Amino acid sequence: MIINLKEHERIDELHRNGYRIIQKENGFCFGMDAVLLSGFADVRPGEKALDLGTGTGIIPILLEAKTKGEHFTGLEIQEEMADMASRSVELNGLKDRIDIIRGDIKEAGLIFGGASFDVVTTNPPYMNDCHGLKNPDEAKAIARHEVLCTLDDVVREGARVLRPGGRFYMVHRPHRLIEIITALTAYRLEPKRMKLVHPFVDKEANMVLIEAVRGGRSMIKVEKPLIVYREQGVYTDEIYDIYGY
Amino acid sequence: MIINLKEHERIDELHRNGYRIIQKENGFCFGMDAVLLSGFADVRPGEKALDLGTGTGIIPILLEAKTKGEHFTGLEIQEEMADMASRSVELNGLKDRIDIIRGDIKEAGLIFGGASFDVVTTNPPYMNDCHGLKNPDEAKAIARHEVLCTLDDVVREGARVLRPGGRFYMVHRPHRLIEIITALTAYRLEPKRMKLVHPFVDKEANMVLIEAVRGGRSMIKVEKPLIVYREQGVYTDEIYDIYGY
Repeated sequence: MIINLKEHERIDELHRNGYRIIQKENGFCFGMDAVLLSGFADVRPGEKALDLGTGTGIIPILLEAKTKGEHFTGLEIQEEMADMASRSVELNGLKDRIDIIRGDIKEAGLIFGGASFDVVTTNPPYMNDCHGLKNPDEAKAIARHEVLCTLDDVVREGARVLRPGGRFYMVHRPHRLIEIITALTAYRLEPKRMKLVHPFVDKEANMVLIEAVRGGRSMIKVEKPLIVYREQGVYTDEIYDIYGY
Repeated sequence: MIINLKEHERIDELHRNGYRIIQKENGFCFGMDAVLLSGFADVRPGEKALDLGTGTGIIPILLEAKTKGEHFTGLEIQEEMADMASRSVELNGLKDRIDIIRGDIKEAGLIFGGASFDVVTTNPPYMNDCHGLKNPDEAKAIARHEVLCTLDDVVREGARVLRPGGRFYMVHRPHRLIEIITALTAYRLEPKRMKLVHPFVDKEANMVLIEAVRGGRSMIKVEKPLIVYREQGVYTDEIYDIYGY
């Protein structure tokens, strides 16, 4: 197979099914958050999943490897990112299992139609204008800051494209948890399962994984915390397990 | 000093300042939740605190010992409980520091007036009608189930009696976290700090401690998890520390 690699791109191993991913050498690369979300989300046999703001396509590619879901779609607004994601899908021989669509999260409901997916996943930009410096690299800024879409946009469109009873999976920053819960419940996505991620067992949480069900009743399970490091520089077994090492 | 103990009552040590508490031999006794709340809540020098549904008075008595707060009030609807709490206050020589008032949480705003406290604490009944069996012992049922007041009542009255910027501290069950956050934000109590309590590091949370600020802006810190047992039958150091052993 000819690998169609552009300037300043590299290929990384994913340790799942021999899959690989194309990323920019100095651009936005997928992080632990995307990997943890792919370990938290559940896509069942026969189900169709949509990833909102898929970037390099990391989440659909990992979910295809880890779950028994039938089909995966990644929506990405940035042309360069969507192009890389498409070539990674091709590289892994997954063209009949994963579609990469270039488009705006704010129009996901229009693009795909209502109630068209069983599962929505998203690792959206975390930062709103109140917190953090914007990255001078525009692609990174779009991935990390709410430049092109807000938390409300992501949740609203996720709710639109999900069938009743469908599941919404998001990774985000805990400092925005109240906004997240307010937005989810406003769009009738009832949070049912939450996992806090702590870098060490004695440090505050720096990520939150949340599952919400479209039209569910109010009752949430807060799972055991996910601790990233056992000690300085040594990951816990759970992290090695999620990464597939 | 003559200890005024009634039939079927006992006295327990609190391991703080030599304080003791009167409880029923076979009735509702304070639990770990009240102790953890007293370790989580912060009452600063000169501040006045109100405990909604104080039961045996455990929270004001522990907070008087642990914090530099100026004055503490416990509100309790059950006559027998309020009477026990008053006698415990007397037993510890705290009559000028703690008032026990018999009254209904649903009328706290009327009883005390608006904006009359710097801090509100509460360990309210956890169970609503959807979950759990009601206890045939009426006093226990009132303490544990939303028989005489609901989560909404507790939060609404807490918000009423707090000054702007005042702090609301609650311990509750994580499965009701979404209702809790919805109620708090509806009454302009903005959650600012949250701590999940897990019996073991690899078990789901069974308690949540939450701090909300009247009129605060949206930004929450999820603290390191509080793990109760290091191994079967052995508490963690943090638990020993909170209990004061």
